[in-house]
Amino acid sequence: MKKIITALLLASSFAAHTTNNEFTATQLQQVSELRDKALNSDLSYQLLESLTTEVGPRLPGTDNDKKAVAWAKAQFEQLGFDKVWLEEASFPEWRRFSESGKIITPSEQPLHLTALGHSVSTPKAGITAEVVLFETLDELIAAPANSLTGKIAYINYKMNRDIDGNGYGPAVRARSTGSVEAAKKGAIGYMMRSVSTAHHRFAHTGASRYQDGVSKIPNVAIANPDADQIARLIALGKPVKVNINIQTEDLGEGQSYNVIGQFNGTENPEQYVLIGGHLDSWDLGTGALDDGAGVALTMAAAKHISEIKRPKRSVRVVLFAAEELGLWGAKAYFKQHANELDKIVAAAESDFGADVVYGFESNVSAHSLPIVRAIAKQLAPLNVAYIAKNDAHGGPDLIPLKNATSAAIFSLHQNGTDYFDYHHTADDTLDKVDPVKLKQNTAAYAVFAFMAADAKTTIKAKPAK
Amino acid sequence: MKKIITALLLASSFAAHTTNNEFTATQLQQVSELRDKALNSDLSYQLLESLTTEVGPRLPGTDNDKKAVAWAKAQFEQLGFDKVWLEEASFPEWRRFSESGKIITPSEQPLHLTALGHSVSTPKAGITAEVVLFETLDELIAAPANSLTGKIAYINYKMNRDIDGNGYGPAVRARSTGSVEAAKKGAIGYMMRSVSTAHHRFAHTGASRYQDGVSKIPNVAIANPDADQIARLIALGKPVKVNINIQTEDLGEGQSYNVIGQFNGTENPEQYVLIGGHLDSWDLGTGALDDGAGVALTMAAAKHISEIKRPKRSVRVVLFAAEELGLWGAKAYFKQHANELDKIVAAAESDFGADVVYGFESNVSAHSLPIVRAIAKQLAPLNVAYIAKNDAHGGPDLIPLKNATSAAIFSLHQNGTDYFDYHHTADDTLDKVDPVKLKQNTAAYAVFAFMAADAKTTIKAKPAK
Repeated sequence: MKKIITALLLASSFAAHTTNNEFTATQLQQVSELRDKALNSDLSYQLLESLTTEVGPRLPGTDNDKKAVAWAKAQFEQLGFDKVWLEEASFPEWRRFSESGKIITPSEQPLHLTALGHSVSTPKAGITAEVVLFETLDELIAAPANSLTGKIAYINYKMNRDIDGNGYGPAVRARSTGSVEAAKKGAIGYMMRSVSTAHHRFAHTGASRYQDGVSKIPNVAIANPDADQIARLIALGKPVKVNINIQTEDLGEGQSYNVIGQFNGTENPEQYVLIGGHLDSWDLGTGALDDGAGVALTMAAAKHISEIKRPKRSVRVVLFAAEELGLWGAKAYFKQHANELDKIVAAAESDFGADVVYGFESNVSAHSLPIVRAIAKQLAPLNVAYIAKNDAHGGPDLIPLKNATSAAIFSLHQNGTDYFDYHHTADDTLDKVDPVKLKQNTAAYAVFAFMAADAKTTIKAKPAK
Repeated sequence: MKKIITALLLASSFAAHTTNNEFTATQLQQVSELRDKALNSDLSYQLLESLTTEVGPRLPGTDNDKKAVAWAKAQFEQLGFDKVWLEEASFPEWRRFSESGKIITPSEQPLHLTALGHSVSTPKAGITAEVVLFETLDELIAAPANSLTGKIAYINYKMNRDIDGNGYGPAVRARSTGSVEAAKKGAIGYMMRSVSTAHHRFAHTGASRYQDGVSKIPNVAIANPDADQIARLIALGKPVKVNINIQTEDLGEGQSYNVIGQFNGTENPEQYVLIGGHLDSWDLGTGALDDGAGVALTMAAAKHISEIKRPKRSVRVVLFAAEELGLWGAKAYFKQHANELDKIVAAAESDFGADVVYGFESNVSAHSLPIVRAIAKQLAPLNVAYIAKNDAHGGPDLIPLKNATSAAIFSLHQNGTDYFDYHHTADDTLDKVDPVKLKQNTAAYAVFAFMAADAKTTIKAKPAK
């Protein structure tokens, strides 16, 4: 692993210091120092280790969520951020108390399952019923009316593995609305193969939703080896009965906080580059990849920038609340700042694990592309390629921003090939983060945020449509 | 994967047909056909899929254990074995009903744990106590008297990864007797890092034992990521409290059966080659690697031999009962056959997963080494190397045989590098077995058993010491 760092540092020292209209030779020298500092620092890993060990899982509204908010505020302060504050966010609070399952016939076997977020409970003894298999959500939607009365509907859809996580969206359809479609046909329970590429026996949780006027039925995902087992048993042609027991609670409106730290700019402090991640996590793992890494590496990136100098514009790290339950922190943040969204000169969220950043992409006015290319040139020594499509989507917490306005959005694309082996499972723990790759991530975010904040001219968004 | 099979078949066709004193050219031609037949057959995988899907986990004494016995008998009969029978075996029956754990302080987090076999229950509410960490069993043994009063002793020993599983023995010491040593110092519970090389969040079960006169305390293993988390928390210097809740039951003496199938020899049917595995499994996974694979591949190997011809001596497949709880089926088998152990001309058990067989080793009289070398020559096309140490240990179920007499024992060494990533965990499921590698295993066992059963002279054991 040391080899990678050495190679990156070596490449870094050869990085072009040719000036352009946006950056002076001095600035480019500062970028080079910043990159090396981040590549040599354990800060992001230390922050990640502290958050995932001392706080652990942090489901919105829990005691651990409160501890995470206190942790983040204390860390920002200790790192010397110029300004540290909290902003309230409310969300529909939900808890998982217990969950278990088993195959009953043809032979009793444990079933590794997890309740999907917002699911109602089963009765105390669980529900026991025959399973009806569909390969896709569309197959379930096409099933005849009342054909699932008294049954548990099961969707066996397999997520595709992909560097950009493109398999996630199509698979998540069954998680979001599968139980609604099942209930419409009379099902008393809903079960799905995990939205996961894992070959291990972990079930993948994630938000689901109900629909007014359709009965709310319990809603679970099963681990992929269990999904294969159910499919094989059904293929034998005999009835397969399972018992599902989940105890959960809908707690109404809960409160948490976006935690924000800022290093003030020297010339235009009201303008800022927004970087960040989400502070909450699911309750099963310790949220190391999702999204402890994003929290830690953006905090560390801002700190490293401050150690080089304060750029012209501010660098703001926003740690969003309650992302997992539906982007509630992000919705609150961009609503609260609705009248000053034009102050955000560039925004990027890290919420895709901590494998290497392999691509850099913008979504900005054509006039700002020279700045983008100058940044890309300084990311190249980190083995980050410039993706010139200028159509970046940013992270999930930037969706409310994009919905509200045309904003200058950036993606530092992490390699997500293995991300969905761990995502939203109990197996998302610290050991899944490679400390060397996390340094590369931190360096990439630092270089991007510094240059976006210190460019001669201000980055502009595409014109609003 | 097809490439591997093609390469093996190609190598196979070049296998030396040079005769020696033990095998005629016709016999060597039959070996070649047998090897190709096994490499091209799905039979072992079909058997494994059927056992692990239709029966699933099969803890000795459970309904599933009875189903496994019925399954094995029916399969032997359907495969046309000449003789199929059951032999009783009794064992100390034990059940796991539920298990859960959490870290209480400094922050509440789930703890992935499993009860060790034969462990007593905790009270219904579990036990909650501070954890005291030891890096090794010897450190715990060296702790002062009464120093663990009211505490949970925790051994953090990390198992080494090794092709031959050499890391297992040293790690298992803490599983076998750790709770006894902890109780001697006053501990109210015992916890250990899993005897596992996994980076995933599965706890590894396995047998433990108590000692007369020492109080029986609950006895669990935690998953390796949880072990790391506990170690990090303790390193922070604050007290770490956990809650352990396991509900188990000691059911006294239970009954199960060794299931045995034999193809009779044509010249000396009373002499036999013994191959096999154990039919029982732990309750957490479906026992695919441990030891469904051994069951399936030895059944299939014998069947493939019978499709070529009946050798001079019998080929007997013994599927041992209750191995996991202490080799009880094997003890019963070798006791029942104590007066005719000299009828076993060669014995090999497959109980180390189903990664490729890379080495072949004997433990026989020097006079029989020419036969061994002739077998090794026919295993070479399968990429199996001859390990000329003549000190094979065979599988665990051959230990009672070795204790009773000097026997001709063989090892077909499977690559165990990844075996302990799954062994004794919920993650030991069918998808962990590579169908192509299973074919190579089946072919190796078929070649070995056929040649040992059909050699001109009878293989002899080393002289008794």
